Amino acid sequence: MCPYRIVLEHVTSRWGVLVLIELLDRPYRFSELRRAIGRVGRVSEKMLTQTLQTLERDGLVHRDAKPVIPPRVDYSLTDLGREAADQVRALALWTEQRMPDVERARHTYDEARTRSAQAS
Amino acid sequence: MCPYRIVLEHVTSRWGVLVLIELLDRPYRFSELRRAIGRVGRVSEKMLTQTLQTLERDGLVHRDAKPVIPPRVDYSLTDLGREAADQVRALALWTEQRMPDVERARHTYDEARTRSAQAS
Repeated sequence: MCPYRIVLEHVTSRWGVLVLIELLDRPYRFSELRRAIGRVGRVSEKMLTQTLQTLERDGLVHRDAKPVIPPRVDYSLTDLGREAADQVRALALWTEQRMPDVERARHTYDEARTRSAQAS
Repeated sequence: MCPYRIVLEHVTSRWGVLVLIELLDRPYRFSELRRAIGRVGRVSEKMLTQTLQTLERDGLVHRDAKPVIPPRVDYSLTDLGREAADQVRALALWTEQRMPDVERARHTYDEARTRSAQAS
């Protein structure tokens, strides 16, 4: 598979999308980010850690560990990450807006299937 | 999970992306489409059939079975599918263009990890 396809999969992965969209608003600490994403879907600590590490390694997310007590780690978008996040958010918004069309299409598709199953 | 997230996963799925991008050019017959996608990654007949059915059910792909002998089936984008495909292609192109940045970031990330592993 082409290398860029792997990055595309990272930014469009279930949690990748949500992390990028949340971080467009502002930087987040880990637990805050997990709560914010939790409004959409429950993400385990392990999955969120993995997602953040993948995005950090790709240069999309910046991890800022502050040398304070208690330790404090902030996650934010890099410039590159912001470019990705803008596009991913646009696609997510488009999908959200178009759901009525998608649902109408599914209804038509399922009806046609039912009819042809009954006819045969 | 929100219903629109499922559609987002369909259009950003490994084969979904490639089908949408190929169909932006022109309609394809099944075997032609499989060959065209094969330039990027080998897709089984079953996976391609499933991908096309999913996109058809979502109203993004139109399946046109012509009543001729031998049977001929053409796949094309609907208007809705074209909107999705334009955005997915833009995101794919962006990822492709930005690969040098991503690779530089990964190199820096991996070096830092190696150094901190050696130090500890």
